[in-house]
Amino acid sequence: MITVTIIGAGNVALHLCKALYKSEGVYLNQIYSRSPLSHHFKNIQVPVTHSLEELKPSDVYIISVSDAAVTSVAQQLPFDNRLVVHTTGSVGMTELPEKNRRGVWYPLQTFSKDKNVSLEHIPFCIEAEDAGDLELLHLLSNAVSTKVYEMNSEQRQTLHLSAVFVSNFVNHLYQITKEIGDAKNIPFEVFQPLMHETLDKLQYLSPTEAQTGPARRNDQETILKHLSLLNNDLYKNIYQLLTTSIRNTYEREEL
Amino acid sequence: MITVTIIGAGNVALHLCKALYKSEGVYLNQIYSRSPLSHHFKNIQVPVTHSLEELKPSDVYIISVSDAAVTSVAQQLPFDNRLVVHTTGSVGMTELPEKNRRGVWYPLQTFSKDKNVSLEHIPFCIEAEDAGDLELLHLLSNAVSTKVYEMNSEQRQTLHLSAVFVSNFVNHLYQITKEIGDAKNIPFEVFQPLMHETLDKLQYLSPTEAQTGPARRNDQETILKHLSLLNNDLYKNIYQLLTTSIRNTYEREEL
Repeated sequence: MITVTIIGAGNVALHLCKALYKSEGVYLNQIYSRSPLSHHFKNIQVPVTHSLEELKPSDVYIISVSDAAVTSVAQQLPFDNRLVVHTTGSVGMTELPEKNRRGVWYPLQTFSKDKNVSLEHIPFCIEAEDAGDLELLHLLSNAVSTKVYEMNSEQRQTLHLSAVFVSNFVNHLYQITKEIGDAKNIPFEVFQPLMHETLDKLQYLSPTEAQTGPARRNDQETILKHLSLLNNDLYKNIYQLLTTSIRNTYEREEL
Repeated sequence: MITVTIIGAGNVALHLCKALYKSEGVYLNQIYSRSPLSHHFKNIQVPVTHSLEELKPSDVYIISVSDAAVTSVAQQLPFDNRLVVHTTGSVGMTELPEKNRRGVWYPLQTFSKDKNVSLEHIPFCIEAEDAGDLELLHLLSNAVSTKVYEMNSEQRQTLHLSAVFVSNFVNHLYQITKEIGDAKNIPFEVFQPLMHETLDKLQYLSPTEAQTGPARRNDQETILKHLSLLNNDLYKNIYQLLTTSIRNTYEREEL
């Protein structure tokens, strides 16, 4: 049985708590939160403390707070030589203080408080200084997910960066689409099958093979027509820049 | 029984032929193609002609050629007062010549020749000058899909533009992600659950509500770290521009 303490009560902490609480082989020992827990935690019957001084012994302490606060929270832990991990893509393992054994347990996913998400297929990217600790992080990951990847801090930073492209920026393109459609009374649902097919295609084709559209074909007439339809200058710039980048991809190939 | 002639043998024509060929209530009369049909058509047992002069009478002629060729092909049709539609988002209905009854039958989807796609849930956007012809396009759409929307040419142009954002540009962000990951030996499969969740979230949340990440939080430290990781200047520009556009969205809201 792996005993676990969660430090933090935000979005990521919530989803990790939920998954760990119901998993076998893991005992969720204690949750630390500066302020009272939100109602989202109501079905998780685990002792809560508001003081780092009151933390009980656990096999692993999972710091799941904002990126900027990870190091300072780790420095305040009133013990040493225990396994302390954070759950952040953008923070290096060695940004944790040396007094404890260090590691990372990073779930690559986008979490919203009001949307349940199963962690079963979520990739957990793990790193630890000590081989035994790495083994423990494998076991911990297997308790909540079927996908575990060992990644060093450099790889994880790249993952974090890529996730911005593949999730935050993709979502922003969805938002632009909705906005453009709303202005002409086009229901957003009309785009859903296209959004799904764009993703599903990648089971059979690489993104480079799957690309279609006026930029891919270098269809300048359609590109100019599209630009003339856009009133928002930012969106016009986005259209031009992504079109240039697509052209650049295929021109590199065609050389 | 609706009798149909397909004019064209490209990507879109292929998928429409496949769906019409096996649908009930539609009889695929003839296919026109300038050049011999590709092997993709091998299971479609329909007479082929290479001469517009040999077109037989049908209830509807579906012109499915490149956007730039639609009008000139329509002008060459050796008959008048028949229903002629095109399948293109970016061409207005009135760009078809007046000598025939005009309409549009536009499936909003991204088609690749080597990837089968069911048309069952594909939105067909229809337009016609004549009420009876519009009714016929409803029946034709229902024969292959459950989703039919009446859209005028202005709405359809907007659809076509939006599809670039939601499909071509999204796919390009997938490609950038793969490229960045490949450089650090990160398997592309690691991103798949995140890509799916980013899309699935929109069943419960609007894109504006679903947005997460450093741009949404205005986390300048992470943004600068990410920019320093990007070597490709175009990708750096894309990161900056989309970050600005996300900030702009929420600053508008926060006013």
